[in-house]
Amino acid sequence: MVFENPVIKELLSKVRVLWALRHATSLMAWDTETYMPREGSTERAIASGELSVLSQQLILRPEVIELVEKAEKQEDLNDYEKGVVRVLKRSIKIAKALPPKLVYELAKTSQEAVVVWREARKKNDFNMFKPYLEKIVDLNREAAEYLGYEEHPYDALLDLYEEGLRTRDVDNIFNVLEPGMKKLLDEILSSGAFPREHKLEYIKYDQSAMEKVNLEVLKILGFPLGTRARLDISAHPFTQHMGIKDVRITTRYEGIDFKRTLFSVIHEFGHALYELQIDERLMATPLARGVSLGIHESQSRFWENIIGRSMSFVKAVYPILSKYLDFIKDYDVDDVYTYFNVVKPSLIRVDADEVTYNFHILLRFEIEKNLLTKEIKVEELPEIWSNEMDRLLGVKPKTYSEGVLQDIHWSMGSIGYFPTYTIGNIVAAQIRHHILKDIPDFYEKIEKLEFKEIREYLREKIHKWGSTYEPKELLKRSFGEEINPQYFIDYIKEKYILRKI
Amino acid sequence: MVFENPVIKELLSKVRVLWALRHATSLMAWDTETYMPREGSTERAIASGELSVLSQQLILRPEVIELVEKAEKQEDLNDYEKGVVRVLKRSIKIAKALPPKLVYELAKTSQEAVVVWREARKKNDFNMFKPYLEKIVDLNREAAEYLGYEEHPYDALLDLYEEGLRTRDVDNIFNVLEPGMKKLLDEILSSGAFPREHKLEYIKYDQSAMEKVNLEVLKILGFPLGTRARLDISAHPFTQHMGIKDVRITTRYEGIDFKRTLFSVIHEFGHALYELQIDERLMATPLARGVSLGIHESQSRFWENIIGRSMSFVKAVYPILSKYLDFIKDYDVDDVYTYFNVVKPSLIRVDADEVTYNFHILLRFEIEKNLLTKEIKVEELPEIWSNEMDRLLGVKPKTYSEGVLQDIHWSMGSIGYFPTYTIGNIVAAQIRHHILKDIPDFYEKIEKLEFKEIREYLREKIHKWGSTYEPKELLKRSFGEEINPQYFIDYIKEKYILRKI
Repeated sequence: MVFENPVIKELLSKVRVLWALRHATSLMAWDTETYMPREGSTERAIASGELSVLSQQLILRPEVIELVEKAEKQEDLNDYEKGVVRVLKRSIKIAKALPPKLVYELAKTSQEAVVVWREARKKNDFNMFKPYLEKIVDLNREAAEYLGYEEHPYDALLDLYEEGLRTRDVDNIFNVLEPGMKKLLDEILSSGAFPREHKLEYIKYDQSAMEKVNLEVLKILGFPLGTRARLDISAHPFTQHMGIKDVRITTRYEGIDFKRTLFSVIHEFGHALYELQIDERLMATPLARGVSLGIHESQSRFWENIIGRSMSFVKAVYPILSKYLDFIKDYDVDDVYTYFNVVKPSLIRVDADEVTYNFHILLRFEIEKNLLTKEIKVEELPEIWSNEMDRLLGVKPKTYSEGVLQDIHWSMGSIGYFPTYTIGNIVAAQIRHHILKDIPDFYEKIEKLEFKEIREYLREKIHKWGSTYEPKELLKRSFGEEINPQYFIDYIKEKYILRKI
Repeated sequence: MVFENPVIKELLSKVRVLWALRHATSLMAWDTETYMPREGSTERAIASGELSVLSQQLILRPEVIELVEKAEKQEDLNDYEKGVVRVLKRSIKIAKALPPKLVYELAKTSQEAVVVWREARKKNDFNMFKPYLEKIVDLNREAAEYLGYEEHPYDALLDLYEEGLRTRDVDNIFNVLEPGMKKLLDEILSSGAFPREHKLEYIKYDQSAMEKVNLEVLKILGFPLGTRARLDISAHPFTQHMGIKDVRITTRYEGIDFKRTLFSVIHEFGHALYELQIDERLMATPLARGVSLGIHESQSRFWENIIGRSMSFVKAVYPILSKYLDFIKDYDVDDVYTYFNVVKPSLIRVDADEVTYNFHILLRFEIEKNLLTKEIKVEELPEIWSNEMDRLLGVKPKTYSEGVLQDIHWSMGSIGYFPTYTIGNIVAAQIRHHILKDIPDFYEKIEKLEFKEIREYLREKIHKWGSTYEPKELLKRSFGEEINPQYFIDYIKEKYILRKI
């Protein structure tokens, strides 16, 4: 048995309803992006609002708080039981700290801001979005004060998305990453081995053929389609889990540049596999989900970049691509590999390659941190954005839409989310380092489409624990060390300079 | 404004979360039958159980009960406001009356019983299902005592499905319906004008062609596909509403006998239209749903039988059928009409035609009533079933599966549900009588595919009110009379004897 302590067991039975509410709201979120009739959005919004308030009320029930306090004092709790206490204490702390009025204001502002942001991006009108962003920054600043922090107000926000992550940690990461990657990027660009564009980017594909490619790739990766998983279509790809046995991913088909849909599928597969491989004994408990956004992103990036963009994988999927996509016959394995690994300093984060991606995050991290401490103002963002993009990547946006207005996150009220992307990139490279020690024929296995051992490795090291250990502890237990950006630099060097991957 | 009284307004804001929970659980129910990966059922069952207990707790919150009591004493409540009080009082009464242990027992027994029932039906093994049915009858008998009744314990159960319906009402209905329909059935069968089978029943169709027929029929009926509604595929057709602006129906494709899928679509359209035409000002309130199963069924039957099986409709859809179904060229309008209106005393309720259907309900009504008062025992059901089918329709089941084991309802714990089907059939015929007075060219409009005025009529008389008036009052207000089975007999006579429809 995983849970034996009677107080923990009572606590779990009391909070199972919270899991059930999350199950329901996850399904609502999935449905909103996939099958909901257009005008259903009005009632969906009302229902989501009500259920989110209800969740807050249920986590703050006096009997739950008392049980958590009682559980904390129990002796001989096992790691799972300690995990339950940790996760619930954290939820209670956050729910208690934020005044309902602030939560309501933030939800209301974001709801409006997302609509305005879409319009503003379309019209390239920063001034339209400015007052909303200012309000969102103010509300987040207020939230940080309520949540509390030791060193930096941004710590309080980072922790919402990545438990235990501090501003100082992110500073330390970028202090290594920025100079290391800047040097590598210059080298890669001047070597010319990885060109800035590829003909395949401009080739149109047939959607139904591409759907077959995606399904076949998912099958070889080990996605339990139909039994425990689904693939659907949505405007923006995402993963949503209703539970350990019901995890759904989506992709989109733009009809051109097939790697975009292919890599979105592999990326979401990585997220999905994390949820699918959680220990079934944790089902319907607070531990039954990936522990943080950063660790989650490490899984998606591991499959998308470490595996999916490797030469071994290109060799392995080349027959699938040729089987369904007529135009592939004009391109060999090397062409496809080059196409998958174009390196180009560019303006849009979501289109960035793995070499330049983290610079986009650095820019956003610096902006968020400084907005919070009022060192910069929202109105200065377009100029800062332009200057920093130039400094970091040598490109300058010509419009707000391809600059400060490109991401949805701020309009949704999220400040402190972006750094989790870089955490994911680094941890993926770090896992690669360790898996190569434990599975020395890692790349041979990929080439032979043998993913079982790789999936099992990830299950043991990361997935099966769900939220049992906080991110830092999970890494320490599984790999005996903390997050280290050097692994990412080494990986990029090995691949793009030494050309060994 | 629909809701003006401040107590009502406060009450509505307090119970909106119950609407939100129903929104969520409706989506879960829809998803379970359409897109959920198979193994997702375990977690779906846990979540459903938790949310159902939560709903019970939320409706019984002291502040809700106090507000309802306060609201009841308010003067000058308008009809909508009175409706809110009535619906909530009723929910509170039911939730209060049934002890949680009984609710739990019934839910648990049904969950097991459905599985056993499926197996038993497959194996034609009544003894396998018998102990479960006995337990379900006992629990329902107990529930009836807790719920309370004036004349007959069955009253308490009927009321759960059809507010205000009493055993005496159903007795009165069948006292008229049984002899009247028995006589007509004999006449119809001996006349031979409506044969017992038709060649088209054995013709296979192409699913994608039939999907186009269904979509085109839905379009002409006025189904807001994509904007406020969906059509999907499931093992058993159903309608599920997430709200007034999100209503979803399903059908199934058996590949043969195309009227089965066509009429399931028209039937579910009738259910869907009811929810879609509820006054939008009732959105997210306890009034935002069809008032009862019987009134709901009257809407589905109105579209399926009164409209869908009329000669006018056959003439109207014949071009659509010929457009997509190649084999239709061998059959003329009269053939299709005859095919749509085959009359055949048969064993399976769900396959019954409109002439014989209510006999199936009468059988079940008598059994349920007598089981409850212990006048008969579960073990006697196979024999009773056989004798009664013989007496009513002149057919005898050769297996339990085509007799007592055919319906899912009892295994789901539902006793008292069946009579609502007959209520629906009668009210549909009753509405037909009235609509012909108000829209004399009703059938001409059908033939011209002009459904707008018909939809508006139903909106004004039934739909827009949602649950504002209880069923009996709704009929009285809209048609100036109570339910009257004679209208059904008259309709059958006019169609099958006088052959005027």
